[in-house]
Amino acid sequence: MTRLTLALDVMGGDIGPRITIPASLLALENDPMLSLILFGDRQQIAPLLEDCPPSFLDRIQIQHCTRTIDNNQGISHALRHSKGTSMRLALEAVQQGLAQGCVSAGNTGALMGLSKILLQPLKGIVRPALISLIPTIEGEKSVMLDLGANIECSAENLYQFAIMGTIFAEYRLNLVYPRIGLLNIGVEEIKGRQSLREAANLLEKSTALNYIGFIEGDVLLNGKADVIVSDGFTGNIALKTLEGAAKNVLSLFKGQSKQYYLKPLFSWIMRYLFKTTYQRLKRINPDEYNGASLIGLTAVVVKSHGNANINAFAQAIADAAFQARHQLPEKILAGLARY
Amino acid sequence: MTRLTLALDVMGGDIGPRITIPASLLALENDPMLSLILFGDRQQIAPLLEDCPPSFLDRIQIQHCTRTIDNNQGISHALRHSKGTSMRLALEAVQQGLAQGCVSAGNTGALMGLSKILLQPLKGIVRPALISLIPTIEGEKSVMLDLGANIECSAENLYQFAIMGTIFAEYRLNLVYPRIGLLNIGVEEIKGRQSLREAANLLEKSTALNYIGFIEGDVLLNGKADVIVSDGFTGNIALKTLEGAAKNVLSLFKGQSKQYYLKPLFSWIMRYLFKTTYQRLKRINPDEYNGASLIGLTAVVVKSHGNANINAFAQAIADAAFQARHQLPEKILAGLARY
Repeated sequence: MTRLTLALDVMGGDIGPRITIPASLLALENDPMLSLILFGDRQQIAPLLEDCPPSFLDRIQIQHCTRTIDNNQGISHALRHSKGTSMRLALEAVQQGLAQGCVSAGNTGALMGLSKILLQPLKGIVRPALISLIPTIEGEKSVMLDLGANIECSAENLYQFAIMGTIFAEYRLNLVYPRIGLLNIGVEEIKGRQSLREAANLLEKSTALNYIGFIEGDVLLNGKADVIVSDGFTGNIALKTLEGAAKNVLSLFKGQSKQYYLKPLFSWIMRYLFKTTYQRLKRINPDEYNGASLIGLTAVVVKSHGNANINAFAQAIADAAFQARHQLPEKILAGLARY
Repeated sequence: MTRLTLALDVMGGDIGPRITIPASLLALENDPMLSLILFGDRQQIAPLLEDCPPSFLDRIQIQHCTRTIDNNQGISHALRHSKGTSMRLALEAVQQGLAQGCVSAGNTGALMGLSKILLQPLKGIVRPALISLIPTIEGEKSVMLDLGANIECSAENLYQFAIMGTIFAEYRLNLVYPRIGLLNIGVEEIKGRQSLREAANLLEKSTALNYIGFIEGDVLLNGKADVIVSDGFTGNIALKTLEGAAKNVLSLFKGQSKQYYLKPLFSWIMRYLFKTTYQRLKRINPDEYNGASLIGLTAVVVKSHGNANINAFAQAIADAAFQARHQLPEKILAGLARY
């Protein structure tokens, strides 16, 4: 692995530094070649670094700032008042080449808007998108985009998402000729919005892309497609619905074991009898695959869930490191010419 | 309970009479005041009624027809060639007052289109919608609409869905002042499509309606809202995603028990240790709450899943009987004036 520096907006997310700082230390522990620039309030950050080993401190730099972008701010207001905020400063560090990627758990719209302004879309990309890994029930992974960056999408937008998703899946999942599915309300050609049918036509014409047709919401976890393409509104609803279902089912089992005062027995059964099942269930849990990426920009930007826990935020940092080391933006730029 | 006759399109669905006929007998067994007119191919229907008790036969009438509407036909083609099909004849029986409601597992678009032509929308209803019960993790139920009848929806459409959903929830779930949520990609006022924000404004102004705000996909199963409102494209994707997640999780447990040759032990554990959990998991299974209803028409029309099993199709028949006995269309017409 190569040396790498990432810029973190440690003030973002529902909790802020009490999650992002322990997560940063965990990421540094897991990745000895990683350095971090932490953008945020030194008064909140410093106490959380007190017990940190000196060797880690060498790889941490704090950039003090007190301004933050609120989660509830509208995008245009947030952008106008973004100067000096932890999110903007982190992105500016990437812009200036001080870091090779950025991670934030803050306001998604603001992160997307600022990234487009400061880091610019790749040449030829009309609409950058939000992409994430989603688990399959067999223990594999798919990628899905757009997850909320673009509410309305044309056929051309969807076609470009398919290209970006293909390249992301090739490197991130190590796949050859990944299968592309368009999320729709039926598998028949006549179903759904006009833009989807037109996108299907465009994809069918491309032999370089492995388009397999429309897929419906009920097979999102079944690994039918490696790249699942939709507009950002639909993708966001579908992903959150999946996450909610997985969390609810896991909580059912946890709740039940408490209720019966049989927690040790429950744990034993889960560990030995339903080992694979439970691991797979847990893998559908969003904490295990946290980190959506802004794709189509000139640099790596990873958006963590706002309610990510320490493990999940550390996962988002690791994801950004992977993409930066594999130069995903450059790969996408090259791929645009290829497809 | 009052006497009631329903018209069934027994040729619809992936399997046809081998599911719909046993389901009809089950429905007759469960509801002694119910009579059925079966529209379909007598050669396929008659053998399936051979072992049926004579008392049931008195309540069954077969209307022979051989034409059907294919699942993959586009709506306009299906409508133009619908004359004499089992689906159209069943709806015509309702139109002529021979039956008080219709059930079909056939082509959803064709069922919606034919229902609008033959049974007409209620006075004042711009867009009839597809509505269904969805289970909550606590064992309660919510209603959700639109599930696929209207791909693009205006704020006014969504507002009217909220009214229809409220009345449906009042009678079907026996609720007073049911809570309405708009499905969106964030809970903040600024999120989502323009039509959603405008619908939120309309709903906020109405004191007769209990609007609680935007809800996201991850709480669909949590019973946060009793009436979940969305456009048909989004609702269809969300519902199918939920169903897929539930089916996948159930299959994980079933699959695991086979793999370990421990099926009896698995059954025992599920039955005694995780009884409530398993029942709740099963309740999220779409088979347990099959039957979406076309709402906003002058008569009751229930659309069963195409892949419904016998229990599920019988459930759809029972659902139609309930709505017809409670005169849901008349209640909605009265409610339109009230809200």
